[in-house]
Amino acid sequence: MYYVGIDLGGTNIAVGILDENLKIIKKGSVPTRASREYPDILKDMAMLTLRLIDETGLSIGQIPYIGIGSPGSCDRKRGYLLYTNNINFKNVPIRQEIQKYIPLPIHLENDANCAALAESMVGAAKDVDNSITVTLGTGVGGGIILNNQIFTGFNGLAGEIGHIVIHQGGEQCTCGRKGCWEAYASATGLIRQTRHAALGNPNSQIHQLVHGDLDKIDAKTAFDAMRAGDATGTKVVNDYIQYVAEGAANLINIFQPEMLIFGGGVSKEGETLLQPVREIVRNCTYFGGGGVPQTQIVTAETGNDTGIIGAATLGLQ
Amino acid sequence: MYYVGIDLGGTNIAVGILDENLKIIKKGSVPTRASREYPDILKDMAMLTLRLIDETGLSIGQIPYIGIGSPGSCDRKRGYLLYTNNINFKNVPIRQEIQKYIPLPIHLENDANCAALAESMVGAAKDVDNSITVTLGTGVGGGIILNNQIFTGFNGLAGEIGHIVIHQGGEQCTCGRKGCWEAYASATGLIRQTRHAALGNPNSQIHQLVHGDLDKIDAKTAFDAMRAGDATGTKVVNDYIQYVAEGAANLINIFQPEMLIFGGGVSKEGETLLQPVREIVRNCTYFGGGGVPQTQIVTAETGNDTGIIGAATLGLQ
Repeated sequence: MYYVGIDLGGTNIAVGILDENLKIIKKGSVPTRASREYPDILKDMAMLTLRLIDETGLSIGQIPYIGIGSPGSCDRKRGYLLYTNNINFKNVPIRQEIQKYIPLPIHLENDANCAALAESMVGAAKDVDNSITVTLGTGVGGGIILNNQIFTGFNGLAGEIGHIVIHQGGEQCTCGRKGCWEAYASATGLIRQTRHAALGNPNSQIHQLVHGDLDKIDAKTAFDAMRAGDATGTKVVNDYIQYVAEGAANLINIFQPEMLIFGGGVSKEGETLLQPVREIVRNCTYFGGGGVPQTQIVTAETGNDTGIIGAATLGLQ
Repeated sequence: MYYVGIDLGGTNIAVGILDENLKIIKKGSVPTRASREYPDILKDMAMLTLRLIDETGLSIGQIPYIGIGSPGSCDRKRGYLLYTNNINFKNVPIRQEIQKYIPLPIHLENDANCAALAESMVGAAKDVDNSITVTLGTGVGGGIILNNQIFTGFNGLAGEIGHIVIHQGGEQCTCGRKGCWEAYASATGLIRQTRHAALGNPNSQIHQLVHGDLDKIDAKTAFDAMRAGDATGTKVVNDYIQYVAEGAANLINIFQPEMLIFGGGVSKEGETLLQPVREIVRNCTYFGGGGVPQTQIVTAETGNDTGIIGAATLGLQ
């Protein structure tokens, strides 16, 4: 048996074929060109998939289903993408469109949930049953795995852990609320915080790091400034870590998962980020002591292929 | 078969016997006198239970287990109460102590989880599988029911939904963090907010309502002032409702439960509280529209007996 996972992104469509050990044996991608109509985008997706299956020397009969991870909210039962703001998709019948070209069952899932499933299947959480994966990227995405399955809530929309308000009335979030965790702990939030700090501190090394062009600030800039001994960068990083930890402690108080996994761009900072997060969390989770086992806080292991792996394993939950 | 539930509170120990339709057929209580040593308190608990069983004309053989709800954190497997700050209990072997007098299996559970189970078994959530019950009392307690079972997390400590920070760096919470939902949305928080507003507004009717004694402010005072047309009371209530709604929206974005149930003292305000909460939540939950079924927000139905009922049904999950 072989497994096919598709990662539908705003920039690229990536497709991978996994063997029965869940190793990727073939990969390919095409640009999404997201401004197009959905039938054209989904046709490209199907054609790439068929080409890769063919190039691997496989037949359709060796593949039990096609798994698709997409940003936004899905209706899994009907195979519809209800809404995503990254691509201009609203109520798109993904399953029906793909099945025009590939006569296989189609599993559809939110991409953050796919990332969490990938970690649960082959990544950091492969030896535990309950984990939460948080992706610190453009937004703060999340997937909740309970008993080795994606937790979706009764209406399929659960797990929007970036959209818990940690600062009532605070920064405007893209979801409409103010003060969401995403508005503070996303790469976007970190970039905003770095820029704001740089504007208020003309002598900060942040300015040199971006050669005077604040539009060049990325999620690494404040960390680089901190490493260069810059006080402004250090303060930005410390505040950012506090934001990350605050949401992490909220999730632990609610779920007490065996493992809390950080993925996405900012998580590449590794222990520079996680070590202080662990320390703050230890001091602010409920009943953190007393010999009771505590949540492990770690970085994701499935990297750039997480979307493909998660989508490919949707039928194995 | 008959079921026995014990509600261990800081003031009273309440015991109830339920018939097979889960109706309470016998009830009794004794003062906890919480300053005593635990063997004395637990002996009183066992004696009251035995007396009620006897008075109902039942034999031990007709009762499958004794369920006990307690504040604090439990080790369900060993039957230990790990910690509670309401009674001075630390690492108390509840099961072992009770079994000195009653030779039956003992189920031990946190009282907020018992309240959630009671609602799930016979209360507002009896027709749904997934619900969250939030008790707005001295603190903000909570119990999460997934697939008709209490969700406890891998280490038994999950569901501390009062201890999600909604206002980073805000009001000091009893748990050690600052800005927890509990610090704002509990009856205690509401009383503090009412008192603070009264102090700042000497002409507010709040002063008359408590006959000039601000120590008499309770969780109803601001609502009463609002009903009397007082601007200060109205502002306190509106702000409080916003706090309640903010945490509710967080929980819905995370869990998408079929039902979110409010119990505890403040929930007696009923629709005065819930109608505006629903409105705020509708506008700030993620993907609140589009024909997808939404969480129902309702008041608890099991009232003062919720602890007994939840404890008595612990073995029926």
